[in-house]
Amino acid sequence: MNNARTMTTFAPPVMEARRWLQGVDFPPERPLINVSQAAPVDPPPEGLRRAIADTALNLPEAHLYGPDLGLPELRAELAQSVSATYNGQVSADQVAITSGCNQAFCAAIISLCNEGDEVILPTPWYFNHKMWLDMQGVRTVPLPCGTGMLPDVAEAAAKITERTRAIVLVSPNNPCGVEYPADLIAAFRDLARDHGLALIIDETYRDFHAQTDAPHELFEDANWQDTVIQLYSFSKSYRLTGHRVGAVVASSERLAEMEKFIDTVTICPNQLAQHAALWGMQNLGDWLAGERLEILDRRAAIEEGFDVLAAQGWKLLGCGAYFAYVEHPFVTPSDELAKLMVRDIGVLALPGTMFMPADDPAGARQLRIAFANVDRTGITTLFQRLASLADLAALRASS
Amino acid sequence: MNNARTMTTFAPPVMEARRWLQGVDFPPERPLINVSQAAPVDPPPEGLRRAIADTALNLPEAHLYGPDLGLPELRAELAQSVSATYNGQVSADQVAITSGCNQAFCAAIISLCNEGDEVILPTPWYFNHKMWLDMQGVRTVPLPCGTGMLPDVAEAAAKITERTRAIVLVSPNNPCGVEYPADLIAAFRDLARDHGLALIIDETYRDFHAQTDAPHELFEDANWQDTVIQLYSFSKSYRLTGHRVGAVVASSERLAEMEKFIDTVTICPNQLAQHAALWGMQNLGDWLAGERLEILDRRAAIEEGFDVLAAQGWKLLGCGAYFAYVEHPFVTPSDELAKLMVRDIGVLALPGTMFMPADDPAGARQLRIAFANVDRTGITTLFQRLASLADLAALRASS
Repeated sequence: MNNARTMTTFAPPVMEARRWLQGVDFPPERPLINVSQAAPVDPPPEGLRRAIADTALNLPEAHLYGPDLGLPELRAELAQSVSATYNGQVSADQVAITSGCNQAFCAAIISLCNEGDEVILPTPWYFNHKMWLDMQGVRTVPLPCGTGMLPDVAEAAAKITERTRAIVLVSPNNPCGVEYPADLIAAFRDLARDHGLALIIDETYRDFHAQTDAPHELFEDANWQDTVIQLYSFSKSYRLTGHRVGAVVASSERLAEMEKFIDTVTICPNQLAQHAALWGMQNLGDWLAGERLEILDRRAAIEEGFDVLAAQGWKLLGCGAYFAYVEHPFVTPSDELAKLMVRDIGVLALPGTMFMPADDPAGARQLRIAFANVDRTGITTLFQRLASLADLAALRASS
Repeated sequence: MNNARTMTTFAPPVMEARRWLQGVDFPPERPLINVSQAAPVDPPPEGLRRAIADTALNLPEAHLYGPDLGLPELRAELAQSVSATYNGQVSADQVAITSGCNQAFCAAIISLCNEGDEVILPTPWYFNHKMWLDMQGVRTVPLPCGTGMLPDVAEAAAKITERTRAIVLVSPNNPCGVEYPADLIAAFRDLARDHGLALIIDETYRDFHAQTDAPHELFEDANWQDTVIQLYSFSKSYRLTGHRVGAVVASSERLAEMEKFIDTVTICPNQLAQHAALWGMQNLGDWLAGERLEILDRRAAIEEGFDVLAAQGWKLLGCGAYFAYVEHPFVTPSDELAKLMVRDIGVLALPGTMFMPADDPAGARQLRIAFANVDRTGITTLFQRLASLADLAALRASS
């Protein structure tokens, strides 16, 4: 298997990080603070759990194959929601439901690229995007973020070649937390359109955006479908991570291409999951609004409490949605630091090296903190533990 | 998107066939007989539906991400079952759960192949296998089945090149229904091993095999994992098609490679689906035995009743599991005949052209009949309708 596609990429980072916990004891007075994975730790609200149970008992077709591109009612509901939120025109046949948002990305790429093509990815990147491009023989062209962890349009333009097929944006960003300004997103759309590229915009975390009105104006453009492919996930918003349900908005012609991939890999999305997402959209609007406020409050706690770390030389590079992206002050590279943190301060966070090309030294100075599951008290504790790193002999010796 | 990977393959056949139904009226006295898709039309038994509902209500973690390679209890249960059924040694870390059996195939191929590699596929093939190979830039090397719709080992050997990575067998076969003899399977294993290839054996329909003891001896070989990759589906056995849950048995090293693909495309299999499969394995043994007898009885009805068609020149090329694979006596090619059958006799079956390379004329004479949902009375009606084809003016004109 030396030359197989999977050999061209790395092992799943979240799984690798989980292995660092093996054999480590976390005493009761200092339990593990796990800020490694961007996922709810609580199940969906009881109403949604009841809705899933009722569907399992009473809707026979929810156990059988459905259409490749998803439940028609859910496609229609999401089309209506996107149209209303973004002041645009999106129809049900421009929406497909996928087995999670990762699959939506994979389907988009395979409908755009072939061996040797190129895709521009701002760095730090979302590692599963990089893994898919690797496995598909597509060259990832890194676009290092600058001020405010934002990518630059002119720098992207300079990287376009005749093999470029797409530019990928994630906003709110994973891992940086940054919310891309609407005019930056529009400028990337213009750049993509001018070169006949697709603009893939992954909005997995859009329900936790700081602003309640449309975060961009892409869908106000009547010709959006010639360039834009939007990705979405129901996983975070309705706590359905274990159900695997996401979505993609694109031209119906592109969805017909993506259908070949979806049909071949998973046939159709899980049917109960789709009914769960539909029930969530129709019944959990107020609940989700409250969830958003709680996340925004935790984000504020990160920003307010960061002083204690800033005094030691830490920098808060970005903060929003589920993530704080930070620069640490130590010489120890982040992939070693992250393991040491598990052992010595009981904190599991992902090192910047997991989000960066191997030849970009910035990753060794950075860490992603997925804070969504940590309340204000927990954030205070987390910062105390991170501050205590400065006292560790090993770090002193190496810094 | 002219050069994208999806453009290298065809549209999903089952979806295409479904479109042939649009605008066609099926009168009450002659309702549609749909023998196109190999899927149960009834939901799982009530006990299993209740188990799913209980899990949704009472097991919080069933809504959250699980391990990439599946629920440990389900992996262990399947390992035990395979070990017992096949008189072999399969451990839980040699089993992974996937989002349906198609994903298991995709994961196996991407862990074996890269651009320009070759895989040997007996024809008629299962179309999603062909679609995945196309989309991955892997050349499909067709191995036309001969007598009894069985592939020949010597012919396969003649097709091996330095780019060959795997041989794929499906037994019981889709679309042919044929059960491959154990010694033929062993001979293919030996051929694969001698050339350092993988033998992928897809046993989606194994629970409907005519013999109750092990259908092959691959796992009696202590070194099975150097060559064998076995695929399985819970979809047909427990009527869980809409839940997307399958499995793969392979060396733990290969599963670690496949994990990169699974993590990237779907992260983990749907969790409720996995609990459903586990409950099914633990509680539905007797029920499944009854389902098998019913399917075997329908198979017998096909074989016994075929005389009426044989008299008109039809041939029963293969029969077993969910499928009868037949040769029709008309000059009209099967892809046209299939559409005409929808309109004129209210029967939807898939043409052989969907299972064959375009340059193999045999496909135009063949049809797949997925009979699992048609009882003895329905089979009699189906055969009457097929027999009536001979009276149609259009066919007389063209034959």
